[in-house]
Amino acid sequence: MVVILKENPNEKQLENLKNWLTSLGLEIHISNGAHQTILGLVGDTSVVDIDLIKALDIVEEVKRIQEPFKNANRKFHPQDTVIEVGGVKLGGGNFQFIAGPCSVETEEQICYVAQAVKEAGAGILRGGAFKPRTSPYSFQGLGADGIRLLLEAKEKTGLPIITEIMDLGQLKYFDDVDIIQVGARNMQNFELLKELGHLRKPVLIKRGMSATLQELLMSAEYVMAGGNDQVILCERGIRTFETYTRNTLDLSAVPVLKSMSHLPVVIDPSHATGKSTLVRSMALAAAAAGADGLMIEVHNDPQHAWCDGPQSITPEAFAALVKDVKSILPFCRYSYE
Amino acid sequence: MVVILKENPNEKQLENLKNWLTSLGLEIHISNGAHQTILGLVGDTSVVDIDLIKALDIVEEVKRIQEPFKNANRKFHPQDTVIEVGGVKLGGGNFQFIAGPCSVETEEQICYVAQAVKEAGAGILRGGAFKPRTSPYSFQGLGADGIRLLLEAKEKTGLPIITEIMDLGQLKYFDDVDIIQVGARNMQNFELLKELGHLRKPVLIKRGMSATLQELLMSAEYVMAGGNDQVILCERGIRTFETYTRNTLDLSAVPVLKSMSHLPVVIDPSHATGKSTLVRSMALAAAAAGADGLMIEVHNDPQHAWCDGPQSITPEAFAALVKDVKSILPFCRYSYE
Amino acid sequence: MVVILKENPNEKQLENLKNWLTSLGLEIHISNGAHQTILGLVGDTSVVDIDLIKALDIVEEVKRIQEPFKNANRKFHPQDTVIEVGGVKLGGGNFQFIAGPCSVETEEQICYVAQAVKEAGAGILRGGAFKPRTSPYSFQGLGADGIRLLLEAKEKTGLPIITEIMDLGQLKYFDDVDIIQVGARNMQNFELLKELGHLRKPVLIKRGMSATLQELLMSAEYVMAGGNDQVILCERGIRTFETYTRNTLDLSAVPVLKSMSHLPVVIDPSHATGKSTLVRSMALAAAAAGADGLMIEVHNDPQHAWCDGPQSITPEAFAALVKDVKSILPFCRYSYE
Amino acid sequence: MVVILKENPNEKQLENLKNWLTSLGLEIHISNGAHQTILGLVGDTSVVDIDLIKALDIVEEVKRIQEPFKNANRKFHPQDTVIEVGGVKLGGGNFQFIAGPCSVETEEQICYVAQAVKEAGAGILRGGAFKPRTSPYSFQGLGADGIRLLLEAKEKTGLPIITEIMDLGQLKYFDDVDIIQVGARNMQNFELLKELGHLRKPVLIKRGMSATLQELLMSAEYVMAGGNDQVILCERGIRTFETYTRNTLDLSAVPVLKSMSHLPVVIDPSHATGKSTLVRSMALAAAAAGADGLMIEVHNDPQHAWCDGPQSITPEAFAALVKDVKSILPFCRYSYE
Repeated sequence: MVVILKENPNEKQLENLKNWLTSLGLEIHISNGAHQTILGLVGDTSVVDIDLIKALDIVEEVKRIQEPFKNANRKFHPQDTVIEVGGVKLGGGNFQFIAGPCSVETEEQICYVAQAVKEAGAGILRGGAFKPRTSPYSFQGLGADGIRLLLEAKEKTGLPIITEIMDLGQLKYFDDVDIIQVGARNMQNFELLKELGHLRKPVLIKRGMSATLQELLMSAEYVMAGGNDQVILCERGIRTFETYTRNTLDLSAVPVLKSMSHLPVVIDPSHATGKSTLVRSMALAAAAAGADGLMIEVHNDPQHAWCDGPQSITPEAFAALVKDVKSILPFCRYSYE
Repeated sequence: MVVILKENPNEKQLENLKNWLTSLGLEIHISNGAHQTILGLVGDTSVVDIDLIKALDIVEEVKRIQEPFKNANRKFHPQDTVIEVGGVKLGGGNFQFIAGPCSVETEEQICYVAQAVKEAGAGILRGGAFKPRTSPYSFQGLGADGIRLLLEAKEKTGLPIITEIMDLGQLKYFDDVDIIQVGARNMQNFELLKELGHLRKPVLIKRGMSATLQELLMSAEYVMAGGNDQVILCERGIRTFETYTRNTLDLSAVPVLKSMSHLPVVIDPSHATGKSTLVRSMALAAAAAGADGLMIEVHNDPQHAWCDGPQSITPEAFAALVKDVKSILPFCRYSYE
Repeated sequence: MVVILKENPNEKQLENLKNWLTSLGLEIHISNGAHQTILGLVGDTSVVDIDLIKALDIVEEVKRIQEPFKNANRKFHPQDTVIEVGGVKLGGGNFQFIAGPCSVETEEQICYVAQAVKEAGAGILRGGAFKPRTSPYSFQGLGADGIRLLLEAKEKTGLPIITEIMDLGQLKYFDDVDIIQVGARNMQNFELLKELGHLRKPVLIKRGMSATLQELLMSAEYVMAGGNDQVILCERGIRTFETYTRNTLDLSAVPVLKSMSHLPVVIDPSHATGKSTLVRSMALAAAAAGADGLMIEVHNDPQHAWCDGPQSITPEAFAALVKDVKSILPFCRYSYE
Repeated sequence: MVVILKENPNEKQLENLKNWLTSLGLEIHISNGAHQTILGLVGDTSVVDIDLIKALDIVEEVKRIQEPFKNANRKFHPQDTVIEVGGVKLGGGNFQFIAGPCSVETEEQICYVAQAVKEAGAGILRGGAFKPRTSPYSFQGLGADGIRLLLEAKEKTGLPIITEIMDLGQLKYFDDVDIIQVGARNMQNFELLKELGHLRKPVLIKRGMSATLQELLMSAEYVMAGGNDQVILCERGIRTFETYTRNTLDLSAVPVLKSMSHLPVVIDPSHATGKSTLVRSMALAAAAAGADGLMIEVHNDPQHAWCDGPQSITPEAFAALVKDVKSILPFCRYSYE
């Protein structure tokens, strides 16, 4: 961390600042220029609240050099984290397909789709039970019943399941859920993250619509600081000025996150684009970019299903996509360790 | 709502769609062009999930004409909502100053600031007890103790208080809090909003960093749908590409929200800009734009307080600001009813 | 400027870097930490291309401390710049109203509006002759004829005029134009800016839709580097995710620009919002924020004019706005010198 | 186009509107609801200025259904456009690599890099002669001399060349340039686009930093409306809130542009990310997404070249990238015709 002081700083305030920084265990290197004095701070600067220093009258500017996250940082943990659920691996060279319907509707539906995506090559089943909806008047999901139906599909197919939690009060229903998903709108629900840090179960965190990559890693850090180091990062599109697609899928998040962190990175092209016609293209691109997995909405029967979003693809389209992704993976290898 | 069909739509699917729309209580007006058929839907279209219709093979495009919010809509409730707490009014021509420190630190600090802002003209005391922090290693606020200290300041000064809730589990500490604040990061924490809808106590909702004005109104609608119609809207800056200010204060939110809704609109220039030197300018601008109130961070002693953010101003600067705002208000009247 | 080196930098490369920096006239202060070496550069760092340094293998990060603009910088020129055209002053405490129609249509129209806005209190007449249009099939303005009509209105009313240039080839028509406007889409048309730098005539530069405030100041610097120091800055809304307004008016640009630069700052609420109903509110807010002037679209007869945009207001509404702005100005004083 | 009227519209104004629309050659279909009247306009609505209609007192809202571009529209021209220069094809299934240095520096440098990228598989040579720079104090490129050097490299290697034009005054130097590039900052320099429409030479248009995909297509339409139908579209990153990468590469632009238009789409991962370490990942992703080509910065000798940006890769890295891209292309086929 570098602190640039204003010209002729008040001596007493400078002394106070230096004492405080030293008390935090930091070493201070002073560089006196003709017009400017610069303090270089060496040590664990993740404990420093950068805003507090900026607030001081004698400070012109503060620049962070080290990243403020530790557990999620590849510098301190070079090897890729590998997540393992129900015999299925994700990360560290293990590419994984997570697929299923937007919402769980009926036992018949979820079991049918689960079987279909398993045959097509999916290793993990997704399905929404608690649904975050912008409008209080929209269908809010089947809730606990939805999780029960997912567990039936898990039993029938053997696929581990992932589903979203929206509030700590729902945690009691997640005992047999294999991966807990934190949605984009809850990425900075810090109380929820803290509690999930006390579990010993994988947590997939979706990037908030306007969250920077560093903020996503800080949210992962919340979970990991509690002792749970099984975190999966998921990019699902950010909010920009472009409105043709629902969000703008930021695929550069893949190489950036993987160089900054050892955690696996999954891409959700369905929610990012909001259009089924764009899913194949963005799924192949994500795999080519070096993602560790894909999360894709697959529905059973578009002619009768009112509840499938416009971003869902058919089991047939999903099977073709899996085949092509597997074909390109050998040519898209990266090394970050 | 207008549904534009693709050319030569499948007859059976069109019949299904029309039956479904009719079953929702909507009237359908069909306009047959040479190449395109348009369905005009008349009735309460807030019940329609626009994404479900877009997903249909026969549909080219769907355009919403009516707003999807009802309780918050000025069309159905022309008169300004007035919030009243502890003898203090906000909205409907009653301009109000909400002021106090970023974080509650000690009894001495909060009582000193409370007294100072009261004398300067503030009607409501703010102060953070549960603090949402990006980093798990930053100070997380005094929690329940912070609320206790706020209540002491309330008793001493008579000022009603507002403070932020981060999770439903904290609700038990808010019995004597006058206004509950929902922070920007929780604007779409729908479970929290639903529960606050069951209270009969004012709720101030801060606009999410990347939330549209309609989404903010939908979050207000969540609270109001539960029967709690005492909602205050707060603009506190949105995330854009500009990084000189912490966020970009969107002051056009004031006339837009007030024309769309009857709810009072408050501006927080402190968090929006993140710089104390910009607070006076943006506060005056907010008042000129027609806001119903201001929420401003005021600290006691910048030389000894490590915890005040760089966006706080002194009690003296706050007093001068209150005076100037009051001087311009008579020239900045708007009528939306 | 601060250059942070990677651990154990190559000695020869470091020597090269230091020699190059010294050759640019910079003084180098080296701070050796346990793990990191920091170079503090003192001198005129505006000559340094920051990207070139970032590209070096031995460099971890480069942080600019000084602003890269000089002529536009308030640090080197504390007094407010005052623009004077046709006896009218703008800046340095002189608030000015620039008003007129979106497009010049007919002699009758422009002379009528010119007279009306003059009576209402405008000091400068605006009107579009060369119109930048997104579509090649839209009306492109009257061109040179439009400027001729503006000059007639100038003669009749005595108002100095401002109109937009789109290409250097049009410069020959601007001899008698008092202020040349560079539109948002041309803010980084550097060849145009360079040429305008050779004139001795005021240039108003509109902020590009996605330009940072520093980039706007760098564009002003292009004009000033050529010797023309009569530059006016204009904020007209930036592009964000919010689509209710055409753009998002960034009023914090006013205090930020005025603290960074001595150049006058004008706000265009008409183009920013794209809605006539929002103009009064944003105009009052701009004045309250400390702007030096307003640029407002005023049309004559909305019932017969096809060409006035939805953001134009009537002469009567403009007159009322002028009156209210003048009433609040005395309470909205700021000192940046 | 659908025009939604306000309740109880003024009869005379409605009559005026209908007459005007009919005079533009449009057919009007009226749908009378209980509370709302909707006009459906059938015909060539690209001639209609949507803002003019929105401005009318009787109009609540206008929604465009057809795209406002014609020549660039795939609906009216289903077959892929193929660009051919110097025996090299781009588009319609012909994937092409465009490579070369950021700036042309010396004859030796450009000829060396040209030979290297040719051997690695590039079909077209790029190199900056006129350089758009944010600062007037930065190196502005070699200008006409730079083009002369590029032509020497062309003669030696046989590679066709592409370089950027910044102003119409530079057009005289472009006689032997094979493809003229319009930079992101000039995407809406409409006078320049119009003039390039009179040439019969390919024009590559880079998407502006905050331009929507439709706006990019409208800029292509400007060139095509002049009779020049050899246009290449280039995505090079958009400006968002994320600052880790220089811009955010929007790869969904590929399938979206290719479905809306028959023009070839090229991706520039170097400028988008601004970091050489991200180029390979984003290049592979672009190819997987269905792009028609890549534009990549390649430098010769990073240890001695001060002028190569941090986003350049070595000829060796480029050669490896070409090999991997060619391997995945057969699995990444899309059909838009």
